[in-house]
Amino acid sequence: MTTFKLDPRHEQDSIFIADIQISQLRLFNRQELLWLILIPKLTDITEFYQLNLQQQHQVLSEINQVSHLLKRHFRCDKLNIAMLGNLVSQLHIHMIVRTHDDSFWPGPPFGLVMQAYPPQAAENLVKQIRSYL
Amino acid sequence: MTTFKLDPRHEQDSIFIADIQISQLRLFNRQELLWLILIPKLTDITEFYQLNLQQQHQVLSEINQVSHLLKRHFRCDKLNIAMLGNLVSQLHIHMIVRTHDDSFWPGPPFGLVMQAYPPQAAENLVKQIRSYL
Repeated sequence: MTTFKLDPRHEQDSIFIADIQISQLRLFNRQELLWLILIPKLTDITEFYQLNLQQQHQVLSEINQVSHLLKRHFRCDKLNIAMLGNLVSQLHIHMIVRTHDDSFWPGPPFGLVMQAYPPQAAENLVKQIRSYL
Repeated sequence: MTTFKLDPRHEQDSIFIADIQISQLRLFNRQELLWLILIPKLTDITEFYQLNLQQQHQVLSEINQVSHLLKRHFRCDKLNIAMLGNLVSQLHIHMIVRTHDDSFWPGPPFGLVMQAYPPQAAENLVKQIRSYL
């Protein structure tokens, strides 16, 4: 059994929040949108259908947990959920809070030029989200 | 109980393939990518977390069914799965076949200018997919 190793691009572009059920929950480091990423800690998985049913149900449970957290504690007019993986193939699930007045509404959130958080703001937000788990 | 009614924009942009478990499976009418859409036949649902667990598991089962169909019968280097709903709020799941040589690889598939299928091509593709169900 190989040990899970986070893809270096996830490491670079996002910040660790917590290990929840079978995934690592991370904050995508772009300040224009509140954007979380779930990364199941499994090796050599690139497609959701490669998970067994138990693993899929666990990820589903995590998606629900994070959805309710976002809905409860932030203004979230629409939640965008996606598994793309064209650039970083390690399976990951994007969970992106959208509001009717965000910079990109109602466009899709992908492939846009966005800015990293100021370091202290990212740290505060990570702590805040962690406190809601 | 209100009867399910397909959003007119889904009606306009996609073609009916089949009713599977709790969703309608449709072909998005854009010829550049093989793009299917699952629409759970439920009323007033805009977010995945609004489904109860049984409904979520049914949608999951449909996602698996369609994933395996696409993987088995088409060249599918990567499957893009997404629930956005910023423009058409009725809950729907995009399932988009990506290949390393498609016109937009490795970019995201959303918000692009694409062309409808010639009518006969769409009809043939729908029949083909239906035969795999």
